[in-house]
Amino acid sequence: MSDFRRTKAMFHLPEGVIYLDGNSLGPLPKAACDHVSDMMRNQWGEMLIGGWNKAGWMRLSTDIGDRIGRLIGAAKGSVITGDTLSIKVYQALASALELNPKRKVVLSDNGNFPSDLYMAQGLLHSLGSDYELRIVSPDNITENLTNDVAVLMLTEVDYRTGRRHDMKELTAQAHAKNVITIWDLAHSAGAIDVDLTAAKADFAIGCTYKYLNGGPGSPGFIYVAPKHADSLRPALSGWLGHEAPFAFDLEYRPGAGIERMRVGTPPVIALKSLEAALDIWDMVEMRDIRAKSMELCDLFISEVETRCPNLSLASPRDARNRGSQVSFRFREGFAAMQACIARGVIGDFRAPDIMRFGFTPLYIDEGDVITAAGIIEDVITNNLWDRPAYKIKGKIT
Amino acid sequence: MSDFRRTKAMFHLPEGVIYLDGNSLGPLPKAACDHVSDMMRNQWGEMLIGGWNKAGWMRLSTDIGDRIGRLIGAAKGSVITGDTLSIKVYQALASALELNPKRKVVLSDNGNFPSDLYMAQGLLHSLGSDYELRIVSPDNITENLTNDVAVLMLTEVDYRTGRRHDMKELTAQAHAKNVITIWDLAHSAGAIDVDLTAAKADFAIGCTYKYLNGGPGSPGFIYVAPKHADSLRPALSGWLGHEAPFAFDLEYRPGAGIERMRVGTPPVIALKSLEAALDIWDMVEMRDIRAKSMELCDLFISEVETRCPNLSLASPRDARNRGSQVSFRFREGFAAMQACIARGVIGDFRAPDIMRFGFTPLYIDEGDVITAAGIIEDVITNNLWDRPAYKIKGKIT
Repeated sequence: MSDFRRTKAMFHLPEGVIYLDGNSLGPLPKAACDHVSDMMRNQWGEMLIGGWNKAGWMRLSTDIGDRIGRLIGAAKGSVITGDTLSIKVYQALASALELNPKRKVVLSDNGNFPSDLYMAQGLLHSLGSDYELRIVSPDNITENLTNDVAVLMLTEVDYRTGRRHDMKELTAQAHAKNVITIWDLAHSAGAIDVDLTAAKADFAIGCTYKYLNGGPGSPGFIYVAPKHADSLRPALSGWLGHEAPFAFDLEYRPGAGIERMRVGTPPVIALKSLEAALDIWDMVEMRDIRAKSMELCDLFISEVETRCPNLSLASPRDARNRGSQVSFRFREGFAAMQACIARGVIGDFRAPDIMRFGFTPLYIDEGDVITAAGIIEDVITNNLWDRPAYKIKGKIT
Repeated sequence: MSDFRRTKAMFHLPEGVIYLDGNSLGPLPKAACDHVSDMMRNQWGEMLIGGWNKAGWMRLSTDIGDRIGRLIGAAKGSVITGDTLSIKVYQALASALELNPKRKVVLSDNGNFPSDLYMAQGLLHSLGSDYELRIVSPDNITENLTNDVAVLMLTEVDYRTGRRHDMKELTAQAHAKNVITIWDLAHSAGAIDVDLTAAKADFAIGCTYKYLNGGPGSPGFIYVAPKHADSLRPALSGWLGHEAPFAFDLEYRPGAGIERMRVGTPPVIALKSLEAALDIWDMVEMRDIRAKSMELCDLFISEVETRCPNLSLASPRDARNRGSQVSFRFREGFAAMQACIARGVIGDFRAPDIMRFGFTPLYIDEGDVITAAGIIEDVITNNLWDRPAYKIKGKIT
């Protein structure tokens, strides 16, 4: 059984803060700073270039990939870290389209991250005018799986409402229509129980700075189903994805399996921070995380609805259809969130009116939920948001 | 006048080591570790998500870009950091090809980094079979600037021999034939006097873990000539290159100028290490670096040629045609380099027979050059390389 009192003690959480924005940027694992310092002083400082072998820097991308893989139901050797989530979207989509060369449509929904759609737009423009990005409502995926669709590209958990797609069911529907699937796990990895293998997903991508707590700008990751991994041509064919990077051949030859999804030199300092964050993840089981997260979110909904009747739930009420966040709509949501933040309850705001609160059992407990709900009640029922200073927009919160 | 005794004292250099491999991975700036720790503890730890604004994380990519820009003759606002060099090659080439849409040939040479050629191969494959990567000898660029060439993509300084292209002359020749230019500065930035503005280069890219000392896997950078910056369509169109990333629009609209070359979330921890490294660069002038580097390299050539007549110079003899490295050919170069490394002189080896030594006045002085030459002499003249342990290949050195 996962010990969440123990994991909570492993994070640095500022005095007086209840941090409900770990779905934007996870907090600092206490050990991360020393782990990074140790790498800088004792590996980079002392081993210099020799660190690539002696300190195992070259293996970090795959070693860390496997540790993330355990959290998302991916077999060993099917996940690699590096670059950013956006770059990994590009890699996945370019490869997926080549697996289905006669079809030219990428199907997605308007609950997807805009960045994923932007990356798709950039790629499709390069591929030519016969390609199309088709964006539908999240409720209309099934009927849009027509026989011109090459790839279904979705984010499992909506970043605004927390609405969760049924990955297994939609993947099965897609496969029945010979459509390749790409799942963005940005709000899934470390948040909910994902089983890529059972869902038969073809590709998945994600980031590590949200629920995984790797730090600001921590690298992305990509999963490729083992059955595809040895047949893909990487669009971003960099030297570290080459079969023999240090042969310095002039012709690209892809490395074995997931290795070909490497591009350039791995970001060692960032990977060390992520490594320390994953030490905490190694102590827990995702099924425990999911069970506790559902309890915390249900408790939060119940507390806020009781205390603040003028907030309306934007997230699915049934925990099974929800990620690890709860969103409420409130007309003055921006100002109200600023007022909450000023009182130590840090969530965030998504236009036009969504107040978003992320939960993770790793460092949030029932006491935090009750305290946060009380502060939100104070802000809402006493109109504490109604101050000019809280209404200045243009911030990232 | 740049004070190189002062800069040398700002690096951690292990006892008994003369580090002549800063062109693979620069050494640790003493201040980098504390600078990163401070960011992790006091910014990430205390400000959490608020760090993006309060600590200026969102501006780091351009602020650091401008500091690199000073070293390579780039105007303010024309350089941005992020991703890896390989990704930046892809961005530059995709945009360059769109500036010259009627032509389909990318011209490069076999002295270019293989990774740059690999990235080009990946991109051209995606663009279609009418595109061609044409690789010629570095001596034959001029006559190959034919009227089907869209883009000339070269690395200024050859990573094996240190041979330097004449950027200004080749750019002028290319422009005379309506060819767009991309210059890879991986072995130029911080090594030699680069003036992108005077050379009228269209694009440049580089990395920051070699001469700039940002640390293993430190991000890449890209320069776009101001005249092009507002007209480019980024192939890698990520959310942070969007005009309004936090509007979360479904349609991509490029940000102003160089901003559109951002892709995903910037790697803040890595950028902080680089920031500390650039504090040292802020203390020196590139013309002083170049003058001193030429002296050091000339001294090294003279010392090694006197002491080791069986090593043959692989680098140009005229310092003006050379980067900031000196390479010698020696049949048993791999084993000889291992023997040098075992004796504290760290250079590296490039197949088939090149012993490569990088020099930078920031932390290498005349005394180091003489001592290193003495150790190399000992290894070569006394056949100290002739031991089985030194002949095991497959290492990154």
